[in-house]
Amino acid sequence: MAAATTTGIASTAAQWKELILKAIDSNSHLKHSSFFQLATIGSNGRPSNRTVVFRGFQEDTDKIRINTDCRSHKIEDLKHCPFAEICWYFTDSWEQFRINGLIDVIDGSNSDPVKLQQRENSWFAGSLKSRLQYLSPDPGLPCISDELPRDINLDPSQGPVGSFCLLVLDPDQVDYLNLKINMRLAFRSCKSENGDKHWTSERIIP
Amino acid sequence: MAAATTTGIASTAAQWKELILKAIDSNSHLKHSSFFQLATIGSNGRPSNRTVVFRGFQEDTDKIRINTDCRSHKIEDLKHCPFAEICWYFTDSWEQFRINGLIDVIDGSNSDPVKLQQRENSWFAGSLKSRLQYLSPDPGLPCISDELPRDINLDPSQGPVGSFCLLVLDPDQVDYLNLKINMRLAFRSCKSENGDKHWTSERIIP
Repeated sequence: MAAATTTGIASTAAQWKELILKAIDSNSHLKHSSFFQLATIGSNGRPSNRTVVFRGFQEDTDKIRINTDCRSHKIEDLKHCPFAEICWYFTDSWEQFRINGLIDVIDGSNSDPVKLQQRENSWFAGSLKSRLQYLSPDPGLPCISDELPRDINLDPSQGPVGSFCLLVLDPDQVDYLNLKINMRLAFRSCKSENGDKHWTSERIIP
Repeated sequence: MAAATTTGIASTAAQWKELILKAIDSNSHLKHSSFFQLATIGSNGRPSNRTVVFRGFQEDTDKIRINTDCRSHKIEDLKHCPFAEICWYFTDSWEQFRINGLIDVIDGSNSDPVKLQQRENSWFAGSLKSRLQYLSPDPGLPCISDELPRDINLDPSQGPVGSFCLLVLDPDQVDYLNLKINMRLAFRSCKSENGDKHWTSERIIP
């Protein structure tokens, strides 16, 4: 069925990753083009949704990196339910990517030295200013004074502080919508016998 | 505690609605400023997230209107779990609203004549072009041909078709973040004895 428009051929390369890289490039003049919305499920069973920043793909994989604060609610959400969906809308090219997958929460207590190294790399890839926010008081708690916070100093060579957390989303479903040409593609992953991840794609009605 | 920065006073007027109306106004030169991301929970227990269009507040209330297709997955999601969270990021003013609440799904089978009238009003408030999309084949199904769809005609005076659905989100929690002045406010609703909705707000650490 649907041979003309459906590419039912499995591929190890994630075709949607090429589409994202192209969208990032064509929208790069907009600061907000690296922002997307991350939906999780709260421990109260309700959906939760916030804007976060794309920090790149994990090396040459299709895994997506996000930096966050260990003290934020999303960590609690992810301990309760590790699934998440990114909705990334590119405002200039009118493209939407919905990326569903499992999130690996990598904080300083992680026992895997490779993951701890990835967390450290993500820490140093951020600006000094962005690192400073992890030293501020607990996000989400009431402000108890109008006073400006005291000056915080951070040695640029200092490694990740305790509150710094790397999230790595491993996608297994991607829905792509291009509103300029009214095209929608559904990508699904599957694992082969040797554990390699493969992707199939299908054109669907927008 | 926190008297200087916390406004713990309950109010029937939704202060966050004023902030949204102001943000809509200051970002109105951007077409995408009326788009936000709506997170729901799928029947598979995973979060789901997509871009939808703000269709205004329900008359003079703080309820938010969204038009959608009865055949879209979000309807199934909402039947399974009626809670949703909107994440609305204004790219020019750097303001984010996270709006959590219950969604009322109003399709043509609704037994309440007032709600059916609201659905009809939402139908006619949309352009003729936007109404036409509810006559297209089932969204999400595989495309079975490359052929262009046949010409669809719709009488401009015709009322809502079967696939047209109005969603009305009744907010009970709103989290406001202004990145330009680094300010965050948490709004919570409560019901008084006579059933009126009241809002409290608190300044929290961003």
